[in-house]
Amino acid sequence: HTPLAVIAGINVLEDEGLSLEVGTELKRICVDLGLPYVFKASFDKANRSSITSFRGPGLKAGLAHLARIKAALDVPICTDVHEPDQAKAVAAIADIVQIPAFLCRQTDLVVAIARETQAAGGVIHVKKAQFLAPWDTKNIIAKIGEAAPDVGVILCERGSSFGYNNLVVDMLGIGAMHDLGVPVTIDATHAVQLPGADPRTAGASTGGRREGVPIIAKAAVASGADGVFLEFHIDPDAALCDAPSCLPLSSARDLLSTLKRVREAVQG
Amino acid sequence: HTPLAVIAGINVLEDEGLSLEVGTELKRICVDLGLPYVFKASFDKANRSSITSFRGPGLKAGLAHLARIKAALDVPICTDVHEPDQAKAVAAIADIVQIPAFLCRQTDLVVAIARETQAAGGVIHVKKAQFLAPWDTKNIIAKIGEAAPDVGVILCERGSSFGYNNLVVDMLGIGAMHDLGVPVTIDATHAVQLPGADPRTAGASTGGRREGVPIIAKAAVASGADGVFLEFHIDPDAALCDAPSCLPLSSARDLLSTLKRVREAVQG
Amino acid sequence: HTPLAVIAGINVLEDEGLSLEVGTELKRICVDLGLPYVFKASFDKANRSSITSFRGPGLKAGLAHLARIKAALDVPICTDVHEPDQAKAVAAIADIVQIPAFLCRQTDLVVAIARETQAAGGVIHVKKAQFLAPWDTKNIIAKIGEAAPDVGVILCERGSSFGYNNLVVDMLGIGAMHDLGVPVTIDATHAVQLPGADPRTAGASTGGRREGVPIIAKAAVASGADGVFLEFHIDPDAALCDAPSCLPLSSARDLLSTLKRVREAVQG
Amino acid sequence: HTPLAVIAGINVLEDEGLSLEVGTELKRICVDLGLPYVFKASFDKANRSSITSFRGPGLKAGLAHLARIKAALDVPICTDVHEPDQAKAVAAIADIVQIPAFLCRQTDLVVAIARETQAAGGVIHVKKAQFLAPWDTKNIIAKIGEAAPDVGVILCERGSSFGYNNLVVDMLGIGAMHDLGVPVTIDATHAVQLPGADPRTAGASTGGRREGVPIIAKAAVASGADGVFLEFHIDPDAALCDAPSCLPLSSARDLLSTLKRVREAVQG
Repeated sequence: HTPLAVIAGINVLEDEGLSLEVGTELKRICVDLGLPYVFKASFDKANRSSITSFRGPGLKAGLAHLARIKAALDVPICTDVHEPDQAKAVAAIADIVQIPAFLCRQTDLVVAIARETQAAGGVIHVKKAQFLAPWDTKNIIAKIGEAAPDVGVILCERGSSFGYNNLVVDMLGIGAMHDLGVPVTIDATHAVQLPGADPRTAGASTGGRREGVPIIAKAAVASGADGVFLEFHIDPDAALCDAPSCLPLSSARDLLSTLKRVREAVQG
Repeated sequence: HTPLAVIAGINVLEDEGLSLEVGTELKRICVDLGLPYVFKASFDKANRSSITSFRGPGLKAGLAHLARIKAALDVPICTDVHEPDQAKAVAAIADIVQIPAFLCRQTDLVVAIARETQAAGGVIHVKKAQFLAPWDTKNIIAKIGEAAPDVGVILCERGSSFGYNNLVVDMLGIGAMHDLGVPVTIDATHAVQLPGADPRTAGASTGGRREGVPIIAKAAVASGADGVFLEFHIDPDAALCDAPSCLPLSSARDLLSTLKRVREAVQG
Repeated sequence: HTPLAVIAGINVLEDEGLSLEVGTELKRICVDLGLPYVFKASFDKANRSSITSFRGPGLKAGLAHLARIKAALDVPICTDVHEPDQAKAVAAIADIVQIPAFLCRQTDLVVAIARETQAAGGVIHVKKAQFLAPWDTKNIIAKIGEAAPDVGVILCERGSSFGYNNLVVDMLGIGAMHDLGVPVTIDATHAVQLPGADPRTAGASTGGRREGVPIIAKAAVASGADGVFLEFHIDPDAALCDAPSCLPLSSARDLLSTLKRVREAVQG
Repeated sequence: HTPLAVIAGINVLEDEGLSLEVGTELKRICVDLGLPYVFKASFDKANRSSITSFRGPGLKAGLAHLARIKAALDVPICTDVHEPDQAKAVAAIADIVQIPAFLCRQTDLVVAIARETQAAGGVIHVKKAQFLAPWDTKNIIAKIGEAAPDVGVILCERGSSFGYNNLVVDMLGIGAMHDLGVPVTIDATHAVQLPGADPRTAGASTGGRREGVPIIAKAAVASGADGVFLEFHIDPDAALCDAPSCLPLSSARDLLSTLKRVREAVQG
């Protein structure tokens, strides 16, 4: 039995105390449960809906922040890259270098991440775009393979466009991506987002969606996902990005314990 | 802990030996696992793609067949109704009377089933249509409640239209239907169908979809479904209806054991 | 050049004065424009969301009402059938017998309508279901052809499920249905519906959708549709069914004139 | 009456003779028809499925190529920008600077294009992403407006994700974008793409889709689009990018004449 991998942390880097508190608690839980743990946070949110939204500390300050967390907690780090010329600096710190969903077909970015991540000995985490069929991720794997034949790749499901202002997770897609010969994770946090700012959906649904994160995580693990990608906060409603889908840190132990049991249940 | 309910059997009534063999084995497994079991089969497939497709024995012979199975196996029966004037005869035999997905908004059918099922002391199983949002099943529950205030209702998820010739199961819909105050089942067999006869999908996908049934069942149980709806056959490829999504009877024990473990895992 | 066919009238039969007023005006406009005209109204709305919704006068009174309109206006009639045993009586009055979208795969209904319509010398109008790909209507045409080889068939596009509580009209579907060798109409009235009763969509969108009817009609005619299906009312907001997508009768002349010009524009 | 705008040319810059031939013919047709004409070509295809696909001449050679076409034909130029640091150079040549669909939410790119295009006196053409509801383009307009309050913006519809490996154009979206106070174009060429490389769709559909381009263009103009975006080639099957949706140059006069007539038909 391979244990369930946990890539978890905060959406975007806020103050360092928050990173330490969240990372410390998540590491403790994962050690207790025997699950491999990777701390996750973004240094930049490059595609916020509004120009005035909080974007994070940026590349330089963000990587320094992540390096201190890595040292303090002694855990691997996962963060994302938005421009080709960020790839080298990120790969120097991050053990898992992430390609954002909207950008997963940008050849220059994929190639830069592939080369720099391989050179640094890391692994690539590809968020499958909301507009991409699971089997079409094979083109991304091929692009990476041509640029960097030895780098490891993980595919991440985070929902597909389902009409307007909604996503749906097709649990059969996890197996379709497994068929490409790579591990598959579920980003349960972003999969429950209601994209856009339409008043028709924003009001009624916000509250209910946070409750959807554990459901999508449990379902995906039951469907064979090898890892989960989750975002927490001490005070989720005060999170500076994606608050409506952010989980309270206090819920992490119960959720991860349940996910471990589900993993064991399906592995027999 | 409420145990997982199992509504399972064959797609459409074929010969009685098959019904007995499938029902006997499924009952044995459910007894061993401590799961409530209901035998399921249709007497008519009223919406096959082609006029020449096998439809089953029809109302009279089919209900007699089901009555003999009920007596021989001492199990409750679930079957579906396609016309209002079939409701009384079906409710006399079936413990769970099913409303087909395409027909779930036909008022006369819903009202007839509601009245006759209540009169006979049964329960109604509503397949949510492929074109219906989970929360919109509240209108069906309201129709049933106005016609027969005391009858029990179970809602069943069986996939939503997702582009052409494909369905997707939104695991968040299970909770949305639970919020209406009723139990929810997953019809994992029909949820993996690729609707239609398009040559673009029929060829490549048929094989892969049968493997999707256990995935959808596990995911839905992990998401909180109270029961599963599954179709088996001694020789699935020879099934007279919906062969591509039919499971071999020999796989039933492993699958139901896994589903029981998943149910326990999420119930803590 | 074949002129654009107009199947238009009211959603459901209300009082006979309304039918006469709407039918008289629509006939006058179509005569002026040189467009063939068919009066359309339903005698029963068999799948309303709520059991308390207005359903119409029913089969017997409704057909008598339609027969009087047919005689008074000297126009062909289009109405729909919901149960197999209604087919004969409807085909005796209606020149165009309609199969409702949700029911277009119910074999017994399709066969009954096919036989009775052929016997009565009518034509069948099939509403393509919201869950059906355009090319999969070939199975319905085949069912009709096996039951009644000489009856004429018209296919009608009325939107496809697009996420929850929304429909979308794929204009490429019109050509895909033409490829099956039959005329194709657009039901622009129902194509703009927002299915369901979800508060997230009902409020914000109701007003805006009525304005969508002419857009869908114009787009479909530009895409090659041979006819339009439209519902009008003297006082649309007071219509007893589907008020939000009902057009004012006073807008009919402008709309049909524009549609005629669009038809001519694409036919060169 | 505002005449229909035509943004048309070739997918990606190939040899200069092709650009001249296509641009000369399209300009001639538009002059004859009284339609404003803009030559369109990409210097880089930054998100091809495969790393080995042809990408074009790149920024420097491509802009030089476009500058020579602009001078030779005396027409405005439209081309797209893929990285923030390309914006200044592109805006110096292009009269219409385009934001690619996948990138339309990348804040840095949108801001750079907004500032440089305003400084150069150009206009921005935003391709609406396949994952974005029409009304959610208001956030892009707001981002542009905060960065460059005086620059003109045009929104372009190019299809929405509809299940896997398919797009659909919602004609009602054109009006929804008009409601934001900007002109709207239809990219009929990309709207008929079948995204991805799935063998289930690639084979059967390729041929039929090219025939879909004129249908989508006519439908969108009938729906109120102010302009069309189209790609042509002398030998479409030999086009180095997106051959299956490329139109033969020889079809341009008929198509644009028809579109002009449709525009006039709907404008009364």
